[in-house]
Amino acid sequence: MNVLIINGPNLNLLGIRETSIYGEKSFTQYFEGICKKYPQYHFEYFQSNIEGELIDKIHEVGYSYDGIVLNAGAYTHTSLALADAISAVKTPVIEVHISNVFKREKVRHHSFIAPVCMGSISGFGLDSYRLAIEALSSVI
Amino acid sequence: MNVLIINGPNLNLLGIRETSIYGEKSFTQYFEGICKKYPQYHFEYFQSNIEGELIDKIHEVGYSYDGIVLNAGAYTHTSLALADAISAVKTPVIEVHISNVFKREKVRHHSFIAPVCMGSISGFGLDSYRLAIEALSSVI
Amino acid sequence: MNVLIINGPNLNLLGIRETSIYGEKSFTQYFEGICKKYPQYHFEYFQSNIEGELIDKIHEVGYSYDGIVLNAGAYTHTSLALADAISAVKTPVIEVHISNVFKREKVRHHSFIAPVCMGSISGFGLDSYRLAIEALSSVI
Amino acid sequence: MNVLIINGPNLNLLGIRETSIYGEKSFTQYFEGICKKYPQYHFEYFQSNIEGELIDKIHEVGYSYDGIVLNAGAYTHTSLALADAISAVKTPVIEVHISNVFKREKVRHHSFIAPVCMGSISGFGLDSYRLAIEALSSVI
Amino acid sequence: MNVLIINGPNLNLLGIRETSIYGEKSFTQYFEGICKKYPQYHFEYFQSNIEGELIDKIHEVGYSYDGIVLNAGAYTHTSLALADAISAVKTPVIEVHISNVFKREKVRHHSFIAPVCMGSISGFGLDSYRLAIEALSSVI
Amino acid sequence: MNVLIINGPNLNLLGIRETSIYGEKSFTQYFEGICKKYPQYHFEYFQSNIEGELIDKIHEVGYSYDGIVLNAGAYTHTSLALADAISAVKTPVIEVHISNVFKREKVRHHSFIAPVCMGSISGFGLDSYRLAIEALSSVI
Amino acid sequence: MNVLIINGPNLNLLGIRETSIYGEKSFTQYFEGICKKYPQYHFEYFQSNIEGELIDKIHEVGYSYDGIVLNAGAYTHTSLALADAISAVKTPVIEVHISNVFKREKVRHHSFIAPVCMGSISGFGLDSYRLAIEALSSVI
Amino acid sequence: MNVLIINGPNLNLLGIRETSIYGEKSFTQYFEGICKKYPQYHFEYFQSNIEGELIDKIHEVGYSYDGIVLNAGAYTHTSLALADAISAVKTPVIEVHISNVFKREKVRHHSFIAPVCMGSISGFGLDSYRLAIEALSSVI
Amino acid sequence: MNVLIINGPNLNLLGIRETSIYGEKSFTQYFEGICKKYPQYHFEYFQSNIEGELIDKIHEVGYSYDGIVLNAGAYTHTSLALADAISAVKTPVIEVHISNVFKREKVRHHSFIAPVCMGSISGFGLDSYRLAIEALSSVI
Amino acid sequence: MNVLIINGPNLNLLGIRETSIYGEKSFTQYFEGICKKYPQYHFEYFQSNIEGELIDKIHEVGYSYDGIVLNAGAYTHTSLALADAISAVKTPVIEVHISNVFKREKVRHHSFIAPVCMGSISGFGLDSYRLAIEALSSVI
Amino acid sequence: MNVLIINGPNLNLLGIRETSIYGEKSFTQYFEGICKKYPQYHFEYFQSNIEGELIDKIHEVGYSYDGIVLNAGAYTHTSLALADAISAVKTPVIEVHISNVFKREKVRHHSFIAPVCMGSISGFGLDSYRLAIEALSSVI
Amino acid sequence: MNVLIINGPNLNLLGIRETSIYGEKSFTQYFEGICKKYPQYHFEYFQSNIEGELIDKIHEVGYSYDGIVLNAGAYTHTSLALADAISAVKTPVIEVHISNVFKREKVRHHSFIAPVCMGSISGFGLDSYRLAIEALSSVI
Repeated sequence: MNVLIINGPNLNLLGIRETSIYGEKSFTQYFEGICKKYPQYHFEYFQSNIEGELIDKIHEVGYSYDGIVLNAGAYTHTSLALADAISAVKTPVIEVHISNVFKREKVRHHSFIAPVCMGSISGFGLDSYRLAIEALSSVI
Repeated sequence: MNVLIINGPNLNLLGIRETSIYGEKSFTQYFEGICKKYPQYHFEYFQSNIEGELIDKIHEVGYSYDGIVLNAGAYTHTSLALADAISAVKTPVIEVHISNVFKREKVRHHSFIAPVCMGSISGFGLDSYRLAIEALSSVI
Repeated sequence: MNVLIINGPNLNLLGIRETSIYGEKSFTQYFEGICKKYPQYHFEYFQSNIEGELIDKIHEVGYSYDGIVLNAGAYTHTSLALADAISAVKTPVIEVHISNVFKREKVRHHSFIAPVCMGSISGFGLDSYRLAIEALSSVI
Repeated sequence: MNVLIINGPNLNLLGIRETSIYGEKSFTQYFEGICKKYPQYHFEYFQSNIEGELIDKIHEVGYSYDGIVLNAGAYTHTSLALADAISAVKTPVIEVHISNVFKREKVRHHSFIAPVCMGSISGFGLDSYRLAIEALSSVI
Repeated sequence: MNVLIINGPNLNLLGIRETSIYGEKSFTQYFEGICKKYPQYHFEYFQSNIEGELIDKIHEVGYSYDGIVLNAGAYTHTSLALADAISAVKTPVIEVHISNVFKREKVRHHSFIAPVCMGSISGFGLDSYRLAIEALSSVI
Repeated sequence: MNVLIINGPNLNLLGIRETSIYGEKSFTQYFEGICKKYPQYHFEYFQSNIEGELIDKIHEVGYSYDGIVLNAGAYTHTSLALADAISAVKTPVIEVHISNVFKREKVRHHSFIAPVCMGSISGFGLDSYRLAIEALSSVI
Repeated sequence: MNVLIINGPNLNLLGIRETSIYGEKSFTQYFEGICKKYPQYHFEYFQSNIEGELIDKIHEVGYSYDGIVLNAGAYTHTSLALADAISAVKTPVIEVHISNVFKREKVRHHSFIAPVCMGSISGFGLDSYRLAIEALSSVI
Repeated sequence: MNVLIINGPNLNLLGIRETSIYGEKSFTQYFEGICKKYPQYHFEYFQSNIEGELIDKIHEVGYSYDGIVLNAGAYTHTSLALADAISAVKTPVIEVHISNVFKREKVRHHSFIAPVCMGSISGFGLDSYRLAIEALSSVI
Repeated sequence: MNVLIINGPNLNLLGIRETSIYGEKSFTQYFEGICKKYPQYHFEYFQSNIEGELIDKIHEVGYSYDGIVLNAGAYTHTSLALADAISAVKTPVIEVHISNVFKREKVRHHSFIAPVCMGSISGFGLDSYRLAIEALSSVI
Repeated sequence: MNVLIINGPNLNLLGIRETSIYGEKSFTQYFEGICKKYPQYHFEYFQSNIEGELIDKIHEVGYSYDGIVLNAGAYTHTSLALADAISAVKTPVIEVHISNVFKREKVRHHSFIAPVCMGSISGFGLDSYRLAIEALSSVI
Repeated sequence: MNVLIINGPNLNLLGIRETSIYGEKSFTQYFEGICKKYPQYHFEYFQSNIEGELIDKIHEVGYSYDGIVLNAGAYTHTSLALADAISAVKTPVIEVHISNVFKREKVRHHSFIAPVCMGSISGFGLDSYRLAIEALSSVI
Repeated sequence: MNVLIINGPNLNLLGIRETSIYGEKSFTQYFEGICKKYPQYHFEYFQSNIEGELIDKIHEVGYSYDGIVLNAGAYTHTSLALADAISAVKTPVIEVHISNVFKREKVRHHSFIAPVCMGSISGFGLDSYRLAIEALSSVI
């Protein structure tokens, strides 16, 4: 069972930026915790600030992996190309957000990728990623 | 640990309507499964088609329970009063939807309650409720 | 042959309010006339000012009756939940309005229920109800 | 008692186009049925694809006939000139649509002529015309 | 002289919720103060979270009482049915709000009921109710 | 000096419709008055309810006449094709309206032809036509 | 205790214009009545049709007076500068309107000054001013 | 017979600004020509860049003069207060514009004053003022 | 193989209007060139300024011809009736425009007919027609 | 070299209002600092709360001065007349704002004057004025 | 004669994705067919999922090549930067789309690049590329 | 003191494209001039057409440099991700534009990055960069 976790723009700063909220644990540390908690899955992690590289990655694994957990950051709200990539592949993709995007500015209330994802999870901090894996586990 | 699951308008028809999708299991049967799966919690279930009764129920448990899982159905998109009830109480509320609301008509893309809930989960079928309980479990 | 006529909010005032327009005959009197005119049908009448009770009633008869004639009053323009109830049931529902809603304020030009009803009739005074029954008669 | 039935653009194709829906009966055949069913009225029928010819016809009979049944087709949604013609004449005009226009594209949800017609009937197939005549019969 | 004060959704929580703002005095206590201050009037108080029950109450007293003071809470912004009830009755209705609704989210800047009320008062805390009674006193 | 006065849809009813406003004088009679008042010009008059015939007429005289006075009626607000015809020809065209269009429904506040006409005159009753001729007289 | 009443554009015509509504009493006469009714306050009155002079006046008294009652007339709906003046000063300002602005054209439903005023009162005729003073009396 | 011509903001620059269009004749010179052409009328001229002074002037003459010709310049598109002044007075007011405002930016396509003026004339250069006087001559 | 080329409103002026762009060759001359270049097809040409005549023509050939090349001119942007005609017939229709409509005013960016045509070609001058025939040649 | 600095509505309060931000130095003191820093220029300062007086001042110096630095305050967002004044004069005008207007309410994101100014500077506190003078220095 | 064909995001999947529509021929195979069909041109092919790389490529060839055929995929609808690149270079660019974008979601009806391209071709499947080359052939 | 100047998409063409405006000096030459003029600062220069590379660069220096001068070109108007990068870092960022963006198409009037920058400078040609450095000099 193969699962890819993708983080989009600015999410490389997790654990560096706003440590008061997420603690000083970087996403890499969190990712290790996930791997341990779900030993039955093979996890991979990818981050890029470049929209097209996120698309490339989705193409790369989207015909063979069992699930993709995607936090597309700000590209959630501006990238139709990312949405096209998701709808082109076979692997189910789950949209996650750390913060509750509906509490933030209006531009973040619309998601280009939500309609082409299997489902959406937002607002549970880093726990949103774990819930996405839980969701995949009843599909895979 | 007390958790209330609330279903809004038309969700009393689950298991009756569109059985090809959700099977012939009614929500009551699903609810029993949840109770068994999480024996450490005390669950209660409430359904009403009346907006004001949903508000009454949120008031009733919202200062003592540990979590509310709310599928507000169509009131999600039209009820500011429900949102006010959620923001008035202390118990964390999680918004769930069975279908991926972002795949449906435009009116269902806006949620009055999302900004005042702890987080939102949509698109995972009945499994959305279980994910919400999982989410609560890391808060409670 | 069973037909339910449902009147929504404020329509309990018919015959009391604005008697200069509809005469001093209450809706109950009009209903009796309908029953006599179409003795081959069994008619029932329901009125409520509570959105959720209208939904309850549609659920109650919507799998067994042959037709529902629905004047949802102001809920026509604000209730997505009512629309969901109509699309959930099997009985054909016909939307009626006493006044020509398109002559009134802009908010009344949009109907949540029109797209899920069999058809719509508006502007013929109380005669709109009779026309709806005529319409059902070629379906039933 | 004189009643004119007017069909607007593309409605000359009825019975030719989409025969799976309306059968192979052309509107002319349907019109004959109407004439027989209501022998107490004198009916006339007019069809044109030209907006201005529809206006001319409304002017021609709009001061002497007892009723006009108008299916303005697509001009319903784009012709203010047609609306002006209707509001200029004395004969009551009833708007009819074969399909439920509210189930179709957004542009068809707005009607220029609805606010100046006596009433509107849509969604009952060819039966919409008969209902309009029924409606006229309680006015004439 | 009979005056009814109506409170809409969530206003049953006054004195319980946000006591730092309104003190620990519940609305019941405030109501008693009002009764004492204006002994020449007979006051009654009604609260419900159900839209349709607010409509029922307005119908009940709206042909015999001398004034209604209405804080419709969130229904102010979503209920056309409530507006229809107000315009149907004879008793003058005054819209009140505790907070300055124009300082809050955009959805609260539009009121369905304002155009059919005698006048509107907002932003003066609980004192808004007293001002409404003062306003009625120069009408009654 | 050749001047064409064009009247668009429904303006053939002038003097027949709403005689309380414009008197019982038909536009033909008014036109005769204009001819007498400005004997130095040669006037012609054209009316049609068909958008394309108005375009044909503008093409016909638009390279040889000295001025066109155009009351396009409702086509003012819906016809881009008419605007294209005006901008294609060489003859200056003046937009006139009998009523003050800005006092009427919102759809009549936008004119497709205004930006391509020499100028616009509205609200002076039949006198609007005379003012347009006055305006041409300082151009011709 | 010092209170300034400010009237904005066109309100110098009160008692001259539309005397059938407000009687032949000018605002000056009404102002005298207010002074007598509340002898414990010192009142001043200012009227100008110039936006900037209203701002000057608010600056002048806004750091020393105890209250300002402001009917900004049409500037209510177009003047952000006036709103800035109100939010700059310390004196509480109450927005009043003689008519129910929500019954009038759409442009009058939005108020630039409402969000920066203490509260708003509209629709009670000249009595709106008295209610504003009552409101101030529980603040001062 | 008294007629006031009012020019609003920036129109004091006529004859100074853009002399290539209007020639080097200032508005004062043009005004003299008007006076000579219509000796049967008494003309007065007023210009101000201050919105409130335009209102003051309209109040001053609006109950005694026979006509006002108003070029409100940019205030046409932003001043509701000016519109209120026009609708408050008895003297008919005619809106004029030198340029064809519908050829310019979108913000200039909407006029606050058009619906309360007797009529509108735009696009004829300085000749627009003469046409307005012609229009008044058939009213006065 | 039968192909009809249809030109809509104002396109009869091609070669007359704006000869600096298209040269002095009229569309008739261009059409002759097309006929010579594709001798294997039978071409016909139709032009009308009347919306309904364009619809009539599409009906006439739309069940027997192999292709229609349609430049609907301004009706592209205003005629839903034309779109209905295209979707009713069986012959594939290709939308062409001489100019790049997306470089022009906003109203020309929306096409009613584009969604019901086989494809769209715009911006290549008269060559757009040849490209449409090329496109048909790989379909026919 | 002559430079005029203009401050619009409410900016007379600088140094009085919100001294915690700008210190207790009034704008007059700041202006003196500017004069000393750029001794090669002749500076003048003008402030008014009246829109028309700002226009008058721009007219007065706009044909002879070498630069105008304009902080139009709230009129930035509501005054088309001010924009017309700027585009009428020859002197280059630079728009400045003390605060970052794009961080504030939506109404402040649109500037009427920006498109007619030479350039815009916002968000640097009082230093915005100095930057504008620097900008002028490379133009003058 | 040099022509570059550029494919934007997700178009690397052509022939892999949705083979039922375009067959199992990859774009590379199609490209070879084009090269053979037009031996008189030198063709090059470039594909990238990265917006900035598309811009880089346009810069690289945009001053020396004779034509660019661009299918920008989803960036068509979101990339102003791509439009800027096209308008900066000298080489004519033709916009192509495989599907009829006007039949798809609303977001795909707007193209940032259409107004800066020479022309647009959409809806003809892979044949759209050939038509673009045909279009270039009459320009080059 | 370290300052980074970042240029976004298409700005690599400066000095190549539109040399009539900016002269034949490339940005590199301009940058050298800046370095000489402000020898007290250490400057670095970065340009990319790839949105994500701009984000990477901002992350790289955004915790150590003293200032960033950013001309984000077209990404200004489409990149929420860039805005997130700016608000995540500590270094103050100043938005600059060479042209006056408010004179250009509507899409360029909105800036995603303006609200998270320290301030904005636009319209002064290449001098905008120098002004930004001046602005930083009073912060650093």
